[in-house]
Amino acid sequence: MTTSPLLEKLIQHFNRFPGIGRKTAQRLAWFLISGDKNAADEFADCIKETMDSFTVCKECLMLSETDPCPICADTDRDDSQLCLVETTSEIYLVENMHEYHGKYFVLGHLLSPLEGFGINDLHLNDLLKLIDRRKPDEIILALKPSAEGEATIHYISELLQKKKVNLTRLSTGIPFGGDLEYTSTLTLANAWKRRYRV
Amino acid sequence: MTTSPLLEKLIQHFNRFPGIGRKTAQRLAWFLISGDKNAADEFADCIKETMDSFTVCKECLMLSETDPCPICADTDRDDSQLCLVETTSEIYLVENMHEYHGKYFVLGHLLSPLEGFGINDLHLNDLLKLIDRRKPDEIILALKPSAEGEATIHYISELLQKKKVNLTRLSTGIPFGGDLEYTSTLTLANAWKRRYRV
Repeated sequence: MTTSPLLEKLIQHFNRFPGIGRKTAQRLAWFLISGDKNAADEFADCIKETMDSFTVCKECLMLSETDPCPICADTDRDDSQLCLVETTSEIYLVENMHEYHGKYFVLGHLLSPLEGFGINDLHLNDLLKLIDRRKPDEIILALKPSAEGEATIHYISELLQKKKVNLTRLSTGIPFGGDLEYTSTLTLANAWKRRYRV
Repeated sequence: MTTSPLLEKLIQHFNRFPGIGRKTAQRLAWFLISGDKNAADEFADCIKETMDSFTVCKECLMLSETDPCPICADTDRDDSQLCLVETTSEIYLVENMHEYHGKYFVLGHLLSPLEGFGINDLHLNDLLKLIDRRKPDEIILALKPSAEGEATIHYISELLQKKKVNLTRLSTGIPFGGDLEYTSTLTLANAWKRRYRV
């Protein structure tokens, strides 16, 4: 008995998600068809409804149910600060901090020659236009400190060299609760170099 | 900015799946809304189509696109052997072996007081009726060797004591490619007890 084409298709849909391998995809598909039909139908409806509702904010390029997004539309938020993130989901992370009251811009990707993302995949023209229009005092690069993040930070810092703006990036170091024993040498060396007076 | 109710609903749908925690559910939801709308729509359609197509085979209780299922309907398959599994997905595992040509019966659950599954949750009346009708020579208990599996095997062996049938179970021991160092004491002790002449 081979897997039915329909079940196989469902497994492949699950398999497309990041971090979901073939075995997990099979488990998820079986969970779905073994479970409540109404719950599965609601799940399918929810996917469609969400896909229909989300759009891209033309200002900051975040995924939002409104255009402009609630943040760009909020006149109480500080236009003098602009936070650059890779994707919309990082905006939620920063917002959860309740520390930042400026605005955002979504780059869409980090520079990653290995994954085939070059400078044309980062929405840099939109970024430059936004900077010229809003003239922020500070641009915070909230990008992950990986090879791709570092390359992107380097490229953007070169690109914005002539703009009158303070370009900052998130601090790197040992995470809170992290154990020195389990900290990579690179992270430790970086934390060492950036040590500060207590 | 709080997560929109719609996005939150989608996250909760993903969160329902086994092994998918809140963080992973968020990642999957973001992957979906950041990605191709057509692909997401096809995924939703595929869920609905699969849910509409799968039904329960009235003979063996497996999930199948036909009732009776292809295995129960196959007159070439051996009625003298009956393999008991917990769920339909295990039937695919046994079938992939290409060793077994008998029939199946899906119990639905294992006995698990902790998860709230008792003898009434195992389709035992259907099983007894099937046994009386088909009178198999051998019943193979293809259940996992966990506390729940052992309890179920024990209960079924008591239940079928008066039936003229060979009740067998899968061998337990060290898995192929397994390292003695990483084998649990219970598994090792069991493999020791069940050692056989080479």
